[in-house]
Amino acid sequence: MSEKLQVAVAGIGRMGMRHARHFATLTPRAELIAVCSPVQAELDAAKKEFGVRTYLSFDDMLAKEKTLQAVVVASATTVHAEQAIKAIEAGKHVLCEKPLSTSPEVSQSVVDAYRKSQKNHPTQKVICGFSRRFDASYRDAYRRMANGDIGTPSVFRSQTCDKLDPSGFFVAYAEFSGGIFVDCSIHDIDLALWFFGEDSRVKSVTAVGITAVQPDLRKHNDRDNAVGIIEFYGGKIAQLYCSRMMAAGQMDCTEVFGTNGQIAVNTQPQSNLVNLFESTGVRREIPPDYYGRFREAFVTEANEFTAACLDNLPAPMSLEGAVAAVRIGCALQESLISGKKIEFDESGKRVEASKL
Amino acid sequence: MSEKLQVAVAGIGRMGMRHARHFATLTPRAELIAVCSPVQAELDAAKKEFGVRTYLSFDDMLAKEKTLQAVVVASATTVHAEQAIKAIEAGKHVLCEKPLSTSPEVSQSVVDAYRKSQKNHPTQKVICGFSRRFDASYRDAYRRMANGDIGTPSVFRSQTCDKLDPSGFFVAYAEFSGGIFVDCSIHDIDLALWFFGEDSRVKSVTAVGITAVQPDLRKHNDRDNAVGIIEFYGGKIAQLYCSRMMAAGQMDCTEVFGTNGQIAVNTQPQSNLVNLFESTGVRREIPPDYYGRFREAFVTEANEFTAACLDNLPAPMSLEGAVAAVRIGCALQESLISGKKIEFDESGKRVEASKL
Amino acid sequence: MSEKLQVAVAGIGRMGMRHARHFATLTPRAELIAVCSPVQAELDAAKKEFGVRTYLSFDDMLAKEKTLQAVVVASATTVHAEQAIKAIEAGKHVLCEKPLSTSPEVSQSVVDAYRKSQKNHPTQKVICGFSRRFDASYRDAYRRMANGDIGTPSVFRSQTCDKLDPSGFFVAYAEFSGGIFVDCSIHDIDLALWFFGEDSRVKSVTAVGITAVQPDLRKHNDRDNAVGIIEFYGGKIAQLYCSRMMAAGQMDCTEVFGTNGQIAVNTQPQSNLVNLFESTGVRREIPPDYYGRFREAFVTEANEFTAACLDNLPAPMSLEGAVAAVRIGCALQESLISGKKIEFDESGKRVEASKL
Amino acid sequence: MSEKLQVAVAGIGRMGMRHARHFATLTPRAELIAVCSPVQAELDAAKKEFGVRTYLSFDDMLAKEKTLQAVVVASATTVHAEQAIKAIEAGKHVLCEKPLSTSPEVSQSVVDAYRKSQKNHPTQKVICGFSRRFDASYRDAYRRMANGDIGTPSVFRSQTCDKLDPSGFFVAYAEFSGGIFVDCSIHDIDLALWFFGEDSRVKSVTAVGITAVQPDLRKHNDRDNAVGIIEFYGGKIAQLYCSRMMAAGQMDCTEVFGTNGQIAVNTQPQSNLVNLFESTGVRREIPPDYYGRFREAFVTEANEFTAACLDNLPAPMSLEGAVAAVRIGCALQESLISGKKIEFDESGKRVEASKL
Repeated sequence: MSEKLQVAVAGIGRMGMRHARHFATLTPRAELIAVCSPVQAELDAAKKEFGVRTYLSFDDMLAKEKTLQAVVVASATTVHAEQAIKAIEAGKHVLCEKPLSTSPEVSQSVVDAYRKSQKNHPTQKVICGFSRRFDASYRDAYRRMANGDIGTPSVFRSQTCDKLDPSGFFVAYAEFSGGIFVDCSIHDIDLALWFFGEDSRVKSVTAVGITAVQPDLRKHNDRDNAVGIIEFYGGKIAQLYCSRMMAAGQMDCTEVFGTNGQIAVNTQPQSNLVNLFESTGVRREIPPDYYGRFREAFVTEANEFTAACLDNLPAPMSLEGAVAAVRIGCALQESLISGKKIEFDESGKRVEASKL
Repeated sequence: MSEKLQVAVAGIGRMGMRHARHFATLTPRAELIAVCSPVQAELDAAKKEFGVRTYLSFDDMLAKEKTLQAVVVASATTVHAEQAIKAIEAGKHVLCEKPLSTSPEVSQSVVDAYRKSQKNHPTQKVICGFSRRFDASYRDAYRRMANGDIGTPSVFRSQTCDKLDPSGFFVAYAEFSGGIFVDCSIHDIDLALWFFGEDSRVKSVTAVGITAVQPDLRKHNDRDNAVGIIEFYGGKIAQLYCSRMMAAGQMDCTEVFGTNGQIAVNTQPQSNLVNLFESTGVRREIPPDYYGRFREAFVTEANEFTAACLDNLPAPMSLEGAVAAVRIGCALQESLISGKKIEFDESGKRVEASKL
Repeated sequence: MSEKLQVAVAGIGRMGMRHARHFATLTPRAELIAVCSPVQAELDAAKKEFGVRTYLSFDDMLAKEKTLQAVVVASATTVHAEQAIKAIEAGKHVLCEKPLSTSPEVSQSVVDAYRKSQKNHPTQKVICGFSRRFDASYRDAYRRMANGDIGTPSVFRSQTCDKLDPSGFFVAYAEFSGGIFVDCSIHDIDLALWFFGEDSRVKSVTAVGITAVQPDLRKHNDRDNAVGIIEFYGGKIAQLYCSRMMAAGQMDCTEVFGTNGQIAVNTQPQSNLVNLFESTGVRREIPPDYYGRFREAFVTEANEFTAACLDNLPAPMSLEGAVAAVRIGCALQESLISGKKIEFDESGKRVEASKL
Repeated sequence: MSEKLQVAVAGIGRMGMRHARHFATLTPRAELIAVCSPVQAELDAAKKEFGVRTYLSFDDMLAKEKTLQAVVVASATTVHAEQAIKAIEAGKHVLCEKPLSTSPEVSQSVVDAYRKSQKNHPTQKVICGFSRRFDASYRDAYRRMANGDIGTPSVFRSQTCDKLDPSGFFVAYAEFSGGIFVDCSIHDIDLALWFFGEDSRVKSVTAVGITAVQPDLRKHNDRDNAVGIIEFYGGKIAQLYCSRMMAAGQMDCTEVFGTNGQIAVNTQPQSNLVNLFESTGVRREIPPDYYGRFREAFVTEANEFTAACLDNLPAPMSLEGAVAAVRIGCALQESLISGKKIEFDESGKRVEASKL
């Protein structure tokens, strides 16, 4: 086997620790060498679990870890882009948690930095971690669609619905999340672009939403349930539902309707292969959160990112797609709040309402 | 047992013959005495199967059948309202196939005729046949929701998707169907009104659609796949999908998301309780059409309509709701074609685009 | 339509009332004219519901109802055979509830009476009511198997498991039920004979059982859970499970494994098409009893029996099969209690243990 | 982290290579250092993939690998016991593929060797790899049962059914497999002992079988479909089905029926979360073989075995249970061929037929 990829993780909150674990113990060709976080307690925990070097400052880590080859950016969304760009400019491979930024312009600046850096580092890899692209079921669905099994994919329905968290977490979180379409539906939008083709051009977006369980979300211009429609040029439609209100657990599912068949992913969610027969009927449990649903996908992501870096393989997805997803998510979020349908011409330029 | 309700069926095409059969043989308290159709061959078939009196003219039937108590209007949609009104004015009970009309105004005229007639015939029953209201699964879902099992119902998702018919039937049919939202989604709209309350007031509707398999539908301003959103005042949303493109069969399903739980109806469609294990995997079939899915509901409808007439019970649903459904369906169809979101104020009046 | 079949029901306990209802209101070509029961209160209830003539004595009913054409025997199992034979000898069509008797010999005497009577009444129909033969799912399964879809059916697994009834009902019932294999598994045995062919010859039976919830069943030589194996000549095996202990409801299912595929019936039981998403997961209810599962089959049975009588069609199944099922059920019950495997030679004669 | 467990794999055919892979790349605390096989081509493949030392002789490997701590025995079943005993006597930890041997006596000799060796090596771990014990779904089922969720587990149904392999592989394999009950059902027997308690005492076993697709199996006293019953003292029953005839793929499932509920594992098999809607209905695929179903369980096994060795944790299961499973499997196989029920007294001694 070749040398191991030298990896650092920036931000070791809940998801950052998971990434660290995936790279430290479940990615044979990678070696976790350092982590950074502004929170000393998090560093202590990581040091204890992984025995790695720790830094309070991202810049320090980047400067001092001379053998570092790849950075996983799992810090707060607000610093994703800044850290990603610094790592890119330092010539490191980057796996950045989604979204690149809640702003399309800032997201684009990451791509710009990458394209510029590639001139000096032609084998550099930078991806945005859309975990569903690494999920075995989604891949099976995609393979079948790409194989022509359902004819031309025409209508897409996808939902990302979180289990209700009565603690008020989502209200605080909404201040920086970019809104429910940018935070939740970004996955579904990315899937739509994957299944319909990353060159799909948006014709219009519309969204409406409510606050059924968390009225305080309105303080941050957010909603707890929202539905949206993305119309693409060329006769394709995506229908989205995002929510923070699910009783049973994480409810993510996707359906692709083609001219000759349909593929459904996870429309009958389950935690495992157990069914319980009780006096109240037949019951199964479902995963409480996205990590319960997508853990294996994250591990696959870590391994494939590592392989792409070490063997100079093509990145599993383009970074431009991640910007397109943010752009669509922001348009949906705007429509959600304004109540207006937003239209685009075929060049991608927004059509002014006055001209409609 | 009391006397049997004397019933005639107007229009004995495919669905009319089914109604005739339900009343003739599966509704013990009803007696089918006459049918009418402009098509002699249909009359001959009905005479042979049921031994009933037959008429080429609806008016004749109404005039001559002195003992007639109830009329099932199952003729072409274009004459639903006219025949219903005539029967109403003759003091007959009426079960009219959906929709009352493809026009909200004409639909309203049926209600007006009914309200006027009731002054002379206080026990007269007139209903529009929304079969899903009689389906055991939908009733179970409604009962649970009404019982508070899912908290406040907030988001509603429903689809009515027909099996692909490559014969071109749907193109010809589109000329008079009122469009896919009025023809298919009318059921889903009725369900939304049932679950959210028939007094729900629409805030906006938006729709987009495509012609993925039947481009000729555009001649009749129709589409073969369409998605729509209905926003209600009071924080409720309905999300619709209608299609003529399903490969496997009829794909009708509904989900109601409440603040405390979710109810799903037929999200795993099936023809029966059989599963087949073959070299290609595990397979089950699904009903080819709405009658395969809702046959029992139609029989229940016949029996409950009969009981309501004979025993002067409250009608199973209000006729006003049927008009509201047509109104919403037409607005969605308009939005589908115009590409514009349509908004309403709290009194139900349409908000002019210029004032937006 | 032809004249209606004139039907009486003997025994109008729970199941008898259901039969009466099916013939009175859901079988258009039949007319319920009389019922009998030794219990006056039951007669009163039937008179009120159906307006029929009532008799405390079966013999009286048979003697006085001059127009009577068909008798449904739904009385206590102990008098099934006696009443069936009397009705047969009186030239009536008979639909006898299962089992004909808990004794193979007595069961055979019903067949003998029928074969004798047929000389005088060549169009007479006598069937034993194995309701699953009329169930749409079982028929679909049978049709596919008969069509060769699974190759040669070779292994059969079937279970009939009742919901736990903590009232002690099953203990009292066991005194006359013939035991759990004769009472419950008789259906599965009949299905095995249907799917493997009614000429299948038994090579051996073995059974074991326990009393997990109703130890008092041992007083009547019965068990509350039992499993059995029927080995047929020609390389076919049936595997049975019967129980009185189910928590969730009635749990009947069947699988047929062929050399080229497998058919499963009701291995995912459900009451309807509703799924509930709750904080504890996803739940569906299942029918509480066999009538919840097989109501439609009973109605079909009533209609097909009626049609067979009126139109002199072949009976839906042979009466000999009903005797064969009792014979196998009794052998399993004997093995259950004795702990011995019971073997038969190819002529159907029992092989003495001493000769083994 | 502590030092890595130094592991060798004996036998690197299909399953041996998988074990090697699991320890080399998916078990962070283990290091694969050597493999052995009598087949040079296998050694070459392993050397290429893992860069490990290779041996044509097991004894050589054991003698020369001075740092070796643990041996995975994945060679032909016929040498399992011999190699396991040698490794045990050399003081190594051992993970032996199932079964220890097809002979109960030989299996017992492995336990004897282990118990003797433990006097000198008190922290030595020896387990037999029953992969289902490491499966997340089975563990969830066990946890619920152990928690009392279904009351007293009383009836157990389990099947291990292989996909039809028309190549004749299973005929050749049968010469050394010990028969279908020892090869396939050994897993179900182990599960029965796990769920009912490893101290469960067998009262009787009975089995019957057929050769529906592979008549040549009779040459090796084997069958391609067999069902069996294990009766335990204390009122518990296990019902087994094993087969080599499945059309769709690997069909393993288990149900545990308790006095208060039921748990089902994998009764609706599936490869992943994808459902396909096609003109023939709704379809899902299922895993083609046990590795498709239990891959994750094998990886968990490798990790937990490693942790048990390094940290001196209790072994995940007792070695005595593995002998008990072989003993029951052999009795079932004997009954399958002889056609006789085999009984045991409460001390575990076989009851002679003459005394029955």
